[in-house]
Amino acid sequence: MSKPLKVVLLGAGVVGSQVARIILDEGDTLEARIGRRLELVGIGVRRMDVERPGIDPALLTTDLESLVARDDLDIVIELIGGIDPARSLVRTAISNGASVISANKALLAEDLGELSRLAEEKGVDLHYEAAVAGAIPIIRPLRESLVGDDITEVMGIVNGTTNFILDKMVTDGVSFDSALAEAQQLGYAEADPTADVGGHDAAAKAAILAGLAFHTEVKGQDVFTEGITGVTEADIAAAESMDCTVKLLAVAKLADDDRITVKVHPAMVAKKHPLAAVRGAYNAIFVNSREAGELMFLGAGAGGSPTASAVMGDVVTVGRNRRRGTAAHMSSGYTRRQVAPIGESRAQFYVSFEVEDRPGVLAKCAAVFGDHNVSLRVVQQSYLEDEVHEEGFPARLGVMTHTTTESALADVVAELRESDFVGSEVRVMRLEGF
Amino acid sequence: MSKPLKVVLLGAGVVGSQVARIILDEGDTLEARIGRRLELVGIGVRRMDVERPGIDPALLTTDLESLVARDDLDIVIELIGGIDPARSLVRTAISNGASVISANKALLAEDLGELSRLAEEKGVDLHYEAAVAGAIPIIRPLRESLVGDDITEVMGIVNGTTNFILDKMVTDGVSFDSALAEAQQLGYAEADPTADVGGHDAAAKAAILAGLAFHTEVKGQDVFTEGITGVTEADIAAAESMDCTVKLLAVAKLADDDRITVKVHPAMVAKKHPLAAVRGAYNAIFVNSREAGELMFLGAGAGGSPTASAVMGDVVTVGRNRRRGTAAHMSSGYTRRQVAPIGESRAQFYVSFEVEDRPGVLAKCAAVFGDHNVSLRVVQQSYLEDEVHEEGFPARLGVMTHTTTESALADVVAELRESDFVGSEVRVMRLEGF
Repeated sequence: MSKPLKVVLLGAGVVGSQVARIILDEGDTLEARIGRRLELVGIGVRRMDVERPGIDPALLTTDLESLVARDDLDIVIELIGGIDPARSLVRTAISNGASVISANKALLAEDLGELSRLAEEKGVDLHYEAAVAGAIPIIRPLRESLVGDDITEVMGIVNGTTNFILDKMVTDGVSFDSALAEAQQLGYAEADPTADVGGHDAAAKAAILAGLAFHTEVKGQDVFTEGITGVTEADIAAAESMDCTVKLLAVAKLADDDRITVKVHPAMVAKKHPLAAVRGAYNAIFVNSREAGELMFLGAGAGGSPTASAVMGDVVTVGRNRRRGTAAHMSSGYTRRQVAPIGESRAQFYVSFEVEDRPGVLAKCAAVFGDHNVSLRVVQQSYLEDEVHEEGFPARLGVMTHTTTESALADVVAELRESDFVGSEVRVMRLEGF
Repeated sequence: MSKPLKVVLLGAGVVGSQVARIILDEGDTLEARIGRRLELVGIGVRRMDVERPGIDPALLTTDLESLVARDDLDIVIELIGGIDPARSLVRTAISNGASVISANKALLAEDLGELSRLAEEKGVDLHYEAAVAGAIPIIRPLRESLVGDDITEVMGIVNGTTNFILDKMVTDGVSFDSALAEAQQLGYAEADPTADVGGHDAAAKAAILAGLAFHTEVKGQDVFTEGITGVTEADIAAAESMDCTVKLLAVAKLADDDRITVKVHPAMVAKKHPLAAVRGAYNAIFVNSREAGELMFLGAGAGGSPTASAVMGDVVTVGRNRRRGTAAHMSSGYTRRQVAPIGESRAQFYVSFEVEDRPGVLAKCAAVFGDHNVSLRVVQQSYLEDEVHEEGFPARLGVMTHTTTESALADVVAELRESDFVGSEVRVMRLEGF
């Protein structure tokens, strides 16, 4: 019989413990699928004093550096997350000839280009299906299935926590704070929810998706990021009145000038768009490409088992490659497309503000948009007699624009804020799916 | 510069002409993605006397046998469809060391196992993303992304023609015949629609999906197949009354005894299930697996450009493998799971029939189900005074059963048909998504 493939696992948390269980319990099945047996030779953990049922304590070590410094490893599975020490551990593993599987979106959003080149140079695999949208197969479809096509747009709900919170706000009519509290109670949100609600988790995933879709290098810091902490019940109601629902979207688009825009922000999504129907903690990725047209991928975006499923798919793929003595990795950063500054990014917007109730005010407001070449698609005016409103501004205007640049819109908003016929609060939300 | 990869294209119809155009027009882009240039060295066609703008006539030949008999080919793209002569052409190509890309569901449903073994033996690739659900990446996710998981169910709308027809019947309340006529007018259905409306096209795809999902060999003839020609407006209305919609489904499930069931049939799908919302000529595949949970893949299921997108994804993948001197193919027929006879397949059913209006009839009907151990979930009784009904049977019973076997249900139906308190027509439809 051929020698088993030596596997090291870094991290034994929610996902890592599931991966360990599958490798240890499903040895025969995995061997049938790979054509070689997997041998788990070590598990790197932060603390030894945690109960880990079913795992031989002799496998555990807190010395992760020594674990990956072995030169006889076939596969290193990195599930510890964060930039350091994950970065140096992954580099050491690749340099020593191991193929690497990582679910570490933060590291990949920072370092995917360099790690890909290192893997290519060393002739090993680097796979990371679990880094974006949990169990949903999206990395491989982008890297392989759609690689003969030209993608023009990738848009997704890639953070289950924020989708759960926004869904609660829509369905139960509650505030952000109360929806967040419920998400924390149910374990969907962490005690410190900043990475999720601030959009940073989604931004890392957007960078990875954009890089793959457009064959270039995009880093987390290139992604314009706006979280959902500022989304109010009024925004949700305004979306409803426009037959939309509010979602936190990761959006990457190819512009006419071959530059790309990559951004994460709450958006009013038209209800007829398939992303509008994605409920609870689910994730979904919508892809538009020249030949294939519109595609959507839907599934569980997080959780131990779904993420472990994605990791194990990579383990079998990499295992098969090791058995054949090959590696299927290819860095895809060959187009060197530029990320356009956010001001030049184009979108449709919804702008809402309170105004004086005097003849000619609507015309003056419309003129502000017109002066900046922003044309209007829908204008809704309502009177706020029975609602709380700023004194002297008893009417509300809700305006949907046609496509324009972020900078033109920002100019409009700045001018509206300075106008004496407009109340002090001007709210803006981007539109998608029209 | 390294030598180009030699490509032969078999078939220049709707999909083939798109593939030729992309290879000829996008040479630089494809070279950047593959790392080698593609050289289209020949196109096998049935007839020479067709206008083919943009294609050098010197590339064309009707002698397909000689084309694939060359021993210097890297990639053969088979888009002619049908079993013969496609089978021998593909075998010749593989035997001569070419990797093969095929969109031929009929051939693969018949011969995937043998062709896979031949490809493995010759160390070449066999890819067929375009054979099922057009542009939707489903083959690669099943073969690779989910290969570390255990799939329990694959269920899909894999034929756009029938989905268009059923959608028309639901939306416009028209008959099957009139919806089919409209589909033919719009080019969604062929002049001879048998392969689509009879479910045979879907059955071939079901065989391919089931084989991949359950790592075994399934042939088209193993698939229980029932088309949509018998679906009536009354069935559509009955579905509506049960908060369902009628879809032609390809269904493959793993049973408790490790056998699988594979079938194609119209089904009443609960509206809350994501497949119920798939409209028009779209395709969608729903996958349930142990670790990943529920996943859905949605997109255009047919058409020249979407199918060409899937073919070109395979071309780039195979091209990269040729460049590296490797092949990623692995036959997955190692579980040798049995396909259970349809009678032992389990499902929930909707049964509808007209009955006498006499005391005790409902009890007698219920007893027929009970005698065969079929338990009832919902019973709807309605009176047909103003509707056409069989004389003497003025009431209608609509019954939803709990899960039971096909054979038990068949026994129930046979007994109902023989009962003097039941009208002559007993209609049955399977349920999914509850």
